[in-house]
Amino acid sequence: MQPHPRRIELFSDAVFAIAITLLVLELPFEKVEEGELWHALEDHWASFAAYAVAFASIGIAWLHHHAVFDRVAKVTRVLLLLNLGVLLTIAFLPFPTQLLGEYVEQGDDARTATLVFGASWTVSAAMMLATWSYARRAPGVLRPETSAAGARRLEMLLRGAVAAYVVFTLVAVVSPAACLGLFSLAAAVVLWGSDYEALEAEPEAVRAPSEPTPPRG
Amino acid sequence: MQPHPRRIELFSDAVFAIAITLLVLELPFEKVEEGELWHALEDHWASFAAYAVAFASIGIAWLHHHAVFDRVAKVTRVLLLLNLGVLLTIAFLPFPTQLLGEYVEQGDDARTATLVFGASWTVSAAMMLATWSYARRAPGVLRPETSAAGARRLEMLLRGAVAAYVVFTLVAVVSPAACLGLFSLAAAVVLWGSDYEALEAEPEAVRAPSEPTPPRG
Amino acid sequence: MQPHPRRIELFSDAVFAIAITLLVLELPFEKVEEGELWHALEDHWASFAAYAVAFASIGIAWLHHHAVFDRVAKVTRVLLLLNLGVLLTIAFLPFPTQLLGEYVEQGDDARTATLVFGASWTVSAAMMLATWSYARRAPGVLRPETSAAGARRLEMLLRGAVAAYVVFTLVAVVSPAACLGLFSLAAAVVLWGSDYEALEAEPEAVRAPSEPTPPRG
Amino acid sequence: MQPHPRRIELFSDAVFAIAITLLVLELPFEKVEEGELWHALEDHWASFAAYAVAFASIGIAWLHHHAVFDRVAKVTRVLLLLNLGVLLTIAFLPFPTQLLGEYVEQGDDARTATLVFGASWTVSAAMMLATWSYARRAPGVLRPETSAAGARRLEMLLRGAVAAYVVFTLVAVVSPAACLGLFSLAAAVVLWGSDYEALEAEPEAVRAPSEPTPPRG
Repeated sequence: MQPHPRRIELFSDAVFAIAITLLVLELPFEKVEEGELWHALEDHWASFAAYAVAFASIGIAWLHHHAVFDRVAKVTRVLLLLNLGVLLTIAFLPFPTQLLGEYVEQGDDARTATLVFGASWTVSAAMMLATWSYARRAPGVLRPETSAAGARRLEMLLRGAVAAYVVFTLVAVVSPAACLGLFSLAAAVVLWGSDYEALEAEPEAVRAPSEPTPPRG
Repeated sequence: MQPHPRRIELFSDAVFAIAITLLVLELPFEKVEEGELWHALEDHWASFAAYAVAFASIGIAWLHHHAVFDRVAKVTRVLLLLNLGVLLTIAFLPFPTQLLGEYVEQGDDARTATLVFGASWTVSAAMMLATWSYARRAPGVLRPETSAAGARRLEMLLRGAVAAYVVFTLVAVVSPAACLGLFSLAAAVVLWGSDYEALEAEPEAVRAPSEPTPPRG
Repeated sequence: MQPHPRRIELFSDAVFAIAITLLVLELPFEKVEEGELWHALEDHWASFAAYAVAFASIGIAWLHHHAVFDRVAKVTRVLLLLNLGVLLTIAFLPFPTQLLGEYVEQGDDARTATLVFGASWTVSAAMMLATWSYARRAPGVLRPETSAAGARRLEMLLRGAVAAYVVFTLVAVVSPAACLGLFSLAAAVVLWGSDYEALEAEPEAVRAPSEPTPPRG
Repeated sequence: MQPHPRRIELFSDAVFAIAITLLVLELPFEKVEEGELWHALEDHWASFAAYAVAFASIGIAWLHHHAVFDRVAKVTRVLLLLNLGVLLTIAFLPFPTQLLGEYVEQGDDARTATLVFGASWTVSAAMMLATWSYARRAPGVLRPETSAAGARRLEMLLRGAVAAYVVFTLVAVVSPAACLGLFSLAAAVVLWGSDYEALEAEPEAVRAPSEPTPPRG
């Protein structure tokens, strides 16, 4: 019934999957002198940490994106544009991740890199929040069976993400290492303890269109 | 009913999604001296601008591609080849985007880079127009329910894209910066104000094949 | 009814789409001196030619792959392995394409690069032929409605591809440029004049499983 | 009925397909002096061997992943996290593959590189085993028609993979070349002789949801 939401979801899923897998290409690799490989890997610990944090955070963003689009029945022009904004910020993330990994131990540049990383995530989370805020309020965009309570909880969750990323980014001014630590901690906490019920649309909403409705009565 | 159009659409969608996400890999990154990261990022402002413009423009091309294939019922040999031409030009775009970002401030090379960028987009838009022009006129290619008025509006829109890109490319001879500015402006204007109704196939045309037709009478 | 063939097809399609789009990352790009960009691009004409030829040839391989799997009803262990072999050779192609583009004008290395390119394509085509030869002959692998004549024509077509690639590779010993020319010519000829009917499975064979069978009188 | 398992499968399939195709980007390529191409390719034999082994092993992991998710009816929070862990380790594999190819002939670094390669595969296989162990035991996660015997055989198979990778990694301490040889041999043996019946879910379990159940009685 809604081929457009499904297509946008498929396209978006592909962008998320590609971005999360491309992260590996940004890992540092230059040929080292004999006997130096282990030290070189140790020196790049921050790149591996940034990789893991970015991987987990893109995973979380993917869950949020699904929570939003599971509830969408009609794609409007504004929703299309907001989603393109989300995808742009997600596809961009391998770049600040690489910056962070390379510069987190290099004086003033650590601050620059962490600020760029934090700002990128903040903008990405803000685009996701804007997408859902719009979808909730625009007439006819949501599936009619979407529960108002669930929609509100999802908005709280997305607002929480923006607020947290703003704080982490501000922390970067004082301590880049603390900022990276907070991003790691948040990824772990959210993955483990997130309000997954708020993420799930109601069972009726996620049924495949081709599935025959069981006969009643 | 039309497994072939669906498959070509899926394959094409994947190429669009990969090309749009690969853009990030072409962003400049070389390890800088301590304290120089912020300046290095500033120096590369053009690469970030080119990234954003290319991202938005590929997004628009994806919308146009869907507008074309939503109306296609039968894939012929010629349509297959024209579509392969579209995909080749789309998959190629990360290269001129990188050129543009690197050279837009470097004298004569700015003109070369901008001309290559503009020409690539012009060829891509021309392939898309050729695909739709063919699909409209070849017997049996379009879905029977496609409205003639909608088909005409889509052709006007795709012709407009080619004409605009030709003009932008000619502007590059005089001023590379103005060319990049026009591409940015066009992406914003088209995303915001495009004739989205012309993009959408009629509701009947986009129904999933597995959806049960509502019983009549 | 055949979820496994569909999944393998989807996975294979993704690999084809990624390989065809990754080709662009292998295009040469090193920052040039002021005023040298146009010459640098001219110097790399062979890379652009190799890109276009590889793009078209992967496109053809994708068509052949679909022709094979459109007729498959059951995936056996051997078919799975043969298909993995096809995918390995397809995913590998960006590497010889890059070699060819870089070395086609560099004396003896031109011969090496062209031989590697030709051999890669020969092995890839041979894997595809082996896949179809096996599928045709193994009991219960093909859809029962597959016409024997269509199956034979497809095998002739795939044998022709292997034979052509063997010849092109041998030509590389004498003249790398002639080999690249033959690959280009073959891609154009095949795309334009291929036996597309042999590529298409019978209409019944390509119907989506969820499509309701029309009620019979 | 289970849209969530399907989506996670699609997303996971995309990550597998991208990771397996990205391997080619890590193949060594630096412009060589005239006449040196063949020697350069020979010198990099280990990179090509590592490429082939990693390609085959990711192919095997993909088969195992499908064997797990074919039997899953409900995705819980824990399953989601375990799967994200599997994807992280799969998406990471191009990095140790590159290390192995570059350093397998360079003294002490060969040991480091092989240990990193072996450890990465061990962790990846352990994540897959954890995913299936959890799925088998958590209430309501598996499809009700999953046979207990098949589930047990799949667990034995995944345990075997972990055990083998642990042994191969330990062998790397003594002989990096032997470790690479064991990985190659294991890939060949598993692809050829794996317990494919254990991989396949029961016919009922893999039926597409839209497929009409044959009328009974």
